Amino acid sequence: MNVLVTGGAGFIGSHLVDRLVGDGHSVVAYDNLSSGFLDYFNPYAGNPHFRFVRGDVLDVAALTEAMRGCDTVFHLAANADVRFGLDHPRRDLEQNTIATHNVLEAMRAAGARRIAFSSTGSVYGEAKVFPTPEDAPFPIQTSLYAASKLAGEGMIAAYAAGYGLQGFIFRFVSLLGERYSHGHVFDFYKQLREHPQELRVLGDGTQRKSYLYVKDCIDAMLTALEKGRDPVGVFNLGADEYCRVTDSIGWICEALNVKPELKFSGGDRGWVGDNPFIFLDCARIRSLGWAPRLTIREGVVKTVEYLRENPWLLEARA
Amino acid sequence: MNVLVTGGAGFIGSHLVDRLVGDGHSVVAYDNLSSGFLDYFNPYAGNPHFRFVRGDVLDVAALTEAMRGCDTVFHLAANADVRFGLDHPRRDLEQNTIATHNVLEAMRAAGARRIAFSSTGSVYGEAKVFPTPEDAPFPIQTSLYAASKLAGEGMIAAYAAGYGLQGFIFRFVSLLGERYSHGHVFDFYKQLREHPQELRVLGDGTQRKSYLYVKDCIDAMLTALEKGRDPVGVFNLGADEYCRVTDSIGWICEALNVKPELKFSGGDRGWVGDNPFIFLDCARIRSLGWAPRLTIREGVVKTVEYLRENPWLLEARA
Repeated sequence: MNVLVTGGAGFIGSHLVDRLVGDGHSVVAYDNLSSGFLDYFNPYAGNPHFRFVRGDVLDVAALTEAMRGCDTVFHLAANADVRFGLDHPRRDLEQNTIATHNVLEAMRAAGARRIAFSSTGSVYGEAKVFPTPEDAPFPIQTSLYAASKLAGEGMIAAYAAGYGLQGFIFRFVSLLGERYSHGHVFDFYKQLREHPQELRVLGDGTQRKSYLYVKDCIDAMLTALEKGRDPVGVFNLGADEYCRVTDSIGWICEALNVKPELKFSGGDRGWVGDNPFIFLDCARIRSLGWAPRLTIREGVVKTVEYLRENPWLLEARA
Repeated sequence: MNVLVTGGAGFIGSHLVDRLVGDGHSVVAYDNLSSGFLDYFNPYAGNPHFRFVRGDVLDVAALTEAMRGCDTVFHLAANADVRFGLDHPRRDLEQNTIATHNVLEAMRAAGARRIAFSSTGSVYGEAKVFPTPEDAPFPIQTSLYAASKLAGEGMIAAYAAGYGLQGFIFRFVSLLGERYSHGHVFDFYKQLREHPQELRVLGDGTQRKSYLYVKDCIDAMLTALEKGRDPVGVFNLGADEYCRVTDSIGWICEALNVKPELKFSGGDRGWVGDNPFIFLDCARIRSLGWAPRLTIREGVVKTVEYLRENPWLLEARA
């Protein structure tokens, strides 16, 4: 494959680049470095099959130029700040909805025919069916983030129908693993590093969520691209299990050998638009032969270990 | 109510303005006159409860200014050109998705708390359940138009959850009636006026569609606003019947007393993204006490009669 990865220097993108280069593909990592790290690409200095382009997904001309010669695009660049969406409602529109339109237009212009898109399990809103399958009842959106991802899904499907592209829409649960720098494990680790005696927790700790180890996620996406034949393939990507926030806190504290006093902010949601229960039915991607290798607990522990060994990441996100 | 209607000078908007002014509400019609007609407002010259503002939904400042003092917004302005969406893929993004974001931002700034939105039955893509209920299986989009309306629905729901607005999302079938100037009855009438001996039909004529008379649609929306209490109400609006394109042709030809030779372009779809079967389950809005007064056949005939009596409309759309 000749692949362009938007958000290629980010958490998920950089793992994907590693895997694609390792598998012998030619890769262009496209990233504006607003939250990614160029250091991830140090191993590829001088590698003729890898190219980094610093650019923004809002710059269609630069994106089109970077995409020339590519057959496949992984569109991972996004505003992933779910929690604070209401503080700046235009950000999801621009960085997710309009950006995805730009990626699709660049693909038409550059002749790329296949797109893989990082959507989210949050598009199910507050689902009524668990585990939630891809064809769950038509949901009502509860966050600007999910609404913008749903908008992206819709455009990709319409471009597939209208222009003959092939689209892979992946609805992720939250991901864990090396280079992770965003989300509850990160927040908890950071708090406990500063004051191991106390942990402030949003909500009442009963929220149930599913997680997936980042390399399992990448395996799943590549499995779908290898085997998927439909013009539009929609795949839930998650573990076949979920945990409570309090479970996760227990694993983190055990790994760090701390026993903080827990201070809950209260309520069954961490913030407005937080979903108290996310658990996806992943039978569709499993039917293609994929299964996750790590449990949620193993993913949490691996994440904590990585954060402990890489204090620079906490400094960079301070 | 103090109401602002975007697209107020259009087909649906102008009927809504008539009804609202007639019911004693204060109305601002906001329209850029790209396809609306100012003449519809001649009866309101000097009426202190009516105001026309010429403006574009892409101009947030003008929209916000026009919205001051309004509690309710009917957001009907849209690019409704479903068939040619693929010729200009940015149009649906701008005039539907971004425009709806602008309307929501203007509402936040101006303090308007309630939005009614003209979505479309096309958001169900190629549905698998007929008649299709609002909570049908999560669909895959097949047109840029529907994808942009879905994006609008998602933002409205997320704004309702996040900022406490109340949202009414109406998924329309195609509308018929006086001032109609867009769609198959219009196209067929125009053809038959020019050459009554021949009618060119897109597809094979077997497409099954549902329609609704415009004044029935307005009754339905006002019923929902009067009785709906949920933060987000989603309502299908359509007739409890459908017809084939060939049925509709029969009624039009009978009304015009012509017997053209039919020339079908062939295929079960009129164009890429055309949906061969649209038939919505409207039990939800009916449970609020609404029912359509006109059958599809009566709506078609009324439309033909209006077009015959108003040749200026065909000239204006030439």
